[in-house]
Amino acid sequence: MRTIRSYAALAHVFGLGALLALGPQVQAQTDPLPSWNDGAAKKAIVEFAQATTTPGNRSFVPPAERVATFDQDGTLWVEHPMYAQVMYCLDRVPVVVKAKPELAKIEPFKTVMSGNRAAIAKMSEGDLIKIAAATLSGMPVEEFQAEVKQWLVEARDPRWKKPYTELTYLPMQEVLKYLRTNGYKTYIVTGGGQDFVRVYSETVYGIPTEQVVGTAGGTKYGYAKDGKPFLTKEPKLLFNDNNAGKPEGIHLEIGRRPYAAFGNSTGDRQMLEWTQAGDGARLSMIVLHDDAKREYAYGPAQGLPNTRIGTFTQALYDEAKKQGWIIISMKDDWKRIFSFEQ
Amino acid sequence: MRTIRSYAALAHVFGLGALLALGPQVQAQTDPLPSWNDGAAKKAIVEFAQATTTPGNRSFVPPAERVATFDQDGTLWVEHPMYAQVMYCLDRVPVVVKAKPELAKIEPFKTVMSGNRAAIAKMSEGDLIKIAAATLSGMPVEEFQAEVKQWLVEARDPRWKKPYTELTYLPMQEVLKYLRTNGYKTYIVTGGGQDFVRVYSETVYGIPTEQVVGTAGGTKYGYAKDGKPFLTKEPKLLFNDNNAGKPEGIHLEIGRRPYAAFGNSTGDRQMLEWTQAGDGARLSMIVLHDDAKREYAYGPAQGLPNTRIGTFTQALYDEAKKQGWIIISMKDDWKRIFSFEQ
Repeated sequence: MRTIRSYAALAHVFGLGALLALGPQVQAQTDPLPSWNDGAAKKAIVEFAQATTTPGNRSFVPPAERVATFDQDGTLWVEHPMYAQVMYCLDRVPVVVKAKPELAKIEPFKTVMSGNRAAIAKMSEGDLIKIAAATLSGMPVEEFQAEVKQWLVEARDPRWKKPYTELTYLPMQEVLKYLRTNGYKTYIVTGGGQDFVRVYSETVYGIPTEQVVGTAGGTKYGYAKDGKPFLTKEPKLLFNDNNAGKPEGIHLEIGRRPYAAFGNSTGDRQMLEWTQAGDGARLSMIVLHDDAKREYAYGPAQGLPNTRIGTFTQALYDEAKKQGWIIISMKDDWKRIFSFEQ
Repeated sequence: MRTIRSYAALAHVFGLGALLALGPQVQAQTDPLPSWNDGAAKKAIVEFAQATTTPGNRSFVPPAERVATFDQDGTLWVEHPMYAQVMYCLDRVPVVVKAKPELAKIEPFKTVMSGNRAAIAKMSEGDLIKIAAATLSGMPVEEFQAEVKQWLVEARDPRWKKPYTELTYLPMQEVLKYLRTNGYKTYIVTGGGQDFVRVYSETVYGIPTEQVVGTAGGTKYGYAKDGKPFLTKEPKLLFNDNNAGKPEGIHLEIGRRPYAAFGNSTGDRQMLEWTQAGDGARLSMIVLHDDAKREYAYGPAQGLPNTRIGTFTQALYDEAKKQGWIIISMKDDWKRIFSFEQ
C-alpha cells in the first residue's frame, strides 16, 4: 500500500471517509457517553436528546421525524493523510492495468504504476477523475461490493497500520448508539461514494445501507447472457453529495430535515446550516481536529496550513460560533479517541 | 375539476399513482388478508411471508434485508382515467397563469385554460413537459408540499367523486400491513413524483417519506433575504423512476434487492424481473385490471384496446407467466376493492 502524505486534489474529487470497530464500553452503565469529558459538547448532546424525546417538552419530536445525519470522513473516522476511498482507488489501479495492459503507457495510470509519490501527489483533478472512473465504475454492482469488502480486510492505514474500519472515533460511535437508543434514525451523509460506504456501514456503524446518502454515480440495468438482469456502475455522476449537495441529497433520499447534524469541514456547512434553520430544538456540531498527538491537527482554524482533506477554514469556525453550532474539540472533549487505545 | 378520459401522452411523461383510506377490518382476526378470496394469489403471499420469516426455513431472510417494493398507480390506488398527479398539474395551471398572466396567451397553457377537453387530450409530450415544469418546480419545497396537501383535501376523482386518497385498494393495504407485521420494510417505488407521493404516503399507506422512491427532479439550495436557507424545486430531471429506472432507483435510494415486488404495468417489468432474479424465495406479483364493474378493465392482455395509462401488454402477461410472477385478478382475487364499498 502506498502512503500518500498530501494529496489535495483527490480530496476535491471525492470528499470521503473511514470505518470503526465496536469497542467494548467499560464505563458506568448510567453514562451513555463514557468516552466524552464533561463539557459543553457532551452537555449539548445529552440535553438535546432529553428535550426532544421527553413527552410534554416543548421541543418534543415525534419518533417518525427523529433524523440525525453524520458526515463520515473526519467526523466518524480518520480522513488524514488521505480519504480511505482514494487509497482504494489507487490500490485498484494495478488491477485495472492488468485487465487493460494498454493503460500502463497512458497517464495518469503510468504515474500511479511508477509508485513515485511526489509525482502522484501532483496529479491534476482531471487525472484523478480518470482514476476514479476506471476503478469505481464499469463493473456489476455486486462485483464492486466484493472488491471493496476484500480491500477493507487487507488494507492498512499508514500511521497505525490498522484496517481503516478500526479508525473510527469511539466517542462518535457512542453518539450514534445514544441517539438510536433515543429513537433517532442515524444516517451517514457523505461526500464519499454511496456504494463504497454502504459496503461496511452496517457492520462498522450499525447503519443500514438505506441510511447511507453519498455521492452517487448512475447504474445501468442490463441482462447477462443467461438472461439474468444486473446493474452496472456507470461513470456518470448523478449527484455530488458535498456542500449544497448535502441538504439536496438529504431531501432526495430522506425527505426530512435533520434535527441533529454532525460534520467537520466546509463540505458540511450547508447541512449544518439547514439543520439549524429548522423549527424547535436542533443540534449542529462540528468536530475540530486539534489533537496532533492522538490523531491530527489541521486547518486554518488551528493556525495551521490549509488542507484540502477536511478543510476547516477560519470562516467556518466563525460561522459556527455565530450560528450556535457546538464545536467538538478532539483534544478537550474526547477522553479516548479509538477503541484500541489503552 | 376537469375529467380527462384518455390522456395517453401524460402517462408517458409521468407514470404515476394513487392514495388510500385505512378502512376498518371487520374480518376474522386470524386472517391477515380478509379482503382476498382464497386462491393462488393469496396463497402465494402468505406462503412467502411464512417461509421468509420462519427461523430455520431454508428461505429465511434476516430482518434487515426484508424489503418489499410497491408501484403506486394502478397497484395501490386507481390510475384511470388519469394519474392523480397529472390532474394536480392541470388543476394548478390557472394558479400559475394568474401569477404569470402572459402565459394565458402561450401554448400549452392557453389550451388548458380553454377547458376544451378534446384539445387537452391531444397535447404533445412536449406540451405536457412544459405543464409539469411550470406546476411542479420553481417553488420552495415546503410551499409545494402545502399546495399538494391542500389539493388532496379538495380534489375529487371523476367517477366516485371521492378524494383520491380514498381510492386505494383495500386488499393491497392489507398486504402492506401484513408484510410490515412480518418485519418487512415496505417501500413505494413509483414513476410518479417522489416529492408528490411523499406528501401523503405516511397518512395514506403508513409508509414514511424516506421509504418513497420516485421520479425526482433536482433541488437547489439557496438563502432567503433573512439569511435562512431553503431548497427550491428545479425543473431539471434527476432520474426517471420507471422501467429500468425502477431497479436503478431502488439501488440508489435503498441499496438492496427487494424480496417482494408488486406492480401492474410495463413500467414495473424490470423491477419485477430484478426481484425475481435474486437468490432464495422471491415474490413478484402483478395486478391485472379486469374488473370493469367495480373498477376498470384495460390493456391488451384483456383483449381491450391498448392504454398508455398503466399499459399491460400481452408480452408482459406472457413474461409474467413464463417467469412465475403471480397475477392478481382484481375480479377474482379481491373480495372487496375499496374500503368504502358495502
